[in-house]
Amino acid sequence: MRVRYAETDQMGVVYHANYLVWFEVGRVEHIRQLGLDYKSMEIEEGCLIAVVEATARYKAPARYDDELIVRTRIAHLRGPILVFDYKIHRATDDLLLCEGSTTHIAVDRKMQRTTMPLRYADAFQRALSK
Amino acid sequence: MRVRYAETDQMGVVYHANYLVWFEVGRVEHIRQLGLDYKSMEIEEGCLIAVVEATARYKAPARYDDELIVRTRIAHLRGPILVFDYKIHRATDDLLLCEGSTTHIAVDRKMQRTTMPLRYADAFQRALSK
Amino acid sequence: MRVRYAETDQMGVVYHANYLVWFEVGRVEHIRQLGLDYKSMEIEEGCLIAVVEATARYKAPARYDDELIVRTRIAHLRGPILVFDYKIHRATDDLLLCEGSTTHIAVDRKMQRTTMPLRYADAFQRALSK
Amino acid sequence: MRVRYAETDQMGVVYHANYLVWFEVGRVEHIRQLGLDYKSMEIEEGCLIAVVEATARYKAPARYDDELIVRTRIAHLRGPILVFDYKIHRATDDLLLCEGSTTHIAVDRKMQRTTMPLRYADAFQRALSK
Repeated sequence: MRVRYAETDQMGVVYHANYLVWFEVGRVEHIRQLGLDYKSMEIEEGCLIAVVEATARYKAPARYDDELIVRTRIAHLRGPILVFDYKIHRATDDLLLCEGSTTHIAVDRKMQRTTMPLRYADAFQRALSK
Repeated sequence: MRVRYAETDQMGVVYHANYLVWFEVGRVEHIRQLGLDYKSMEIEEGCLIAVVEATARYKAPARYDDELIVRTRIAHLRGPILVFDYKIHRATDDLLLCEGSTTHIAVDRKMQRTTMPLRYADAFQRALSK
Repeated sequence: MRVRYAETDQMGVVYHANYLVWFEVGRVEHIRQLGLDYKSMEIEEGCLIAVVEATARYKAPARYDDELIVRTRIAHLRGPILVFDYKIHRATDDLLLCEGSTTHIAVDRKMQRTTMPLRYADAFQRALSK
Repeated sequence: MRVRYAETDQMGVVYHANYLVWFEVGRVEHIRQLGLDYKSMEIEEGCLIAVVEATARYKAPARYDDELIVRTRIAHLRGPILVFDYKIHRATDDLLLCEGSTTHIAVDRKMQRTTMPLRYADAFQRALSK
């Protein structure tokens, strides 16, 4: 993933809110690597994983055109609560730029708390045990 | 409306795609001033006005913390087609920063072409005649 | 401040990264109310307050066209470290939508740690004591 | 390139301003394929290519998680003026989603009109002749 011009600000570095967007790119790819598909989870199961908390600690600034690597792992799963951890590194020298986590809760289309579909809960649990 | 830090890029000016977002802010406010409410149009009438074309000409750069004025007018209305024109000025000296237009078409929730609800079509027509 | 269409996502609510942008809108306005101007701080003093940590807890979703109120206060100041707290409420019923905080550090144009200009440090300190 | 959740809006499709961001992704990659590097052009030559006009025509909506292909070509070059054309297709079925163009002008760091560095002007000219 490369830093886009749109993602920089007038400090000449990446605007901090964009790291949350990259966390999400990492999350979606991680779910895909578990053999699941977040898009289908929304469409077929009517289950969304809404963000209830997000934290980011900025270690070094990402700059325009940097290649980035997002490393995502599932840190916690209990009932409808799911926590992901992220580390974003610069590809050229593996420098840690940002780390953080997001806490999610399974909700239905009306944004009401619901149960995580079993197939997804199982796969997340397996990923956690690794 | 003030320019947000998030809207700048590393050139030290506003990233050009943000002007389309401000066009939309102007459009929504203009619709509100016609006594209508775009939010209700979506919810109650199931009618959305999708963008089919957008053009912006950049005259001078907006900078962080600038106060902006968006002047919006309806330029054209014919059946399901609706065109808005915009001029964005800097508040302090009325300098023209950007002008542009967006062309819209009435669609339903499935993104299929539909008829503009009469109440809205009438109000847009009246605004056009002024 | 009204929620923009651009700020929503396909869940039909505001995309979570946008709250960090609103925190910044609150922060800039709060600094302005202290009789300071963050823009000048960057230009005249060459001092930027970079974000080193950001946290948001989402309580209820903001939706398109909602009017929002951001309440900002300085929570902590020690040397070059400055912490802001935020609460974002829906204007119509004062419902708390999101709360969070951001930690900043004074840096120069080269993103190296620097001293907060005295005039700013003093004003932040006075705001903190209230 | 995959559509990010952040790029959708509550219509359930991609918010229209994001296509301008993707045009830029295509532009930067196109310049890279010409053996140039836009980042260096800014840093080493102090030459920026500011956007003076942008147009997009939306043919079909891009949706969350769609894979996209951006095809970019240089359409025009005359003195400091440079025009790029774009077509954005959905990867799975090559459906055309959006086409557009951006007009640029070479400027220096103070946003004043300048001459395109010869090495870049030559490469753009060669790309145009193909």
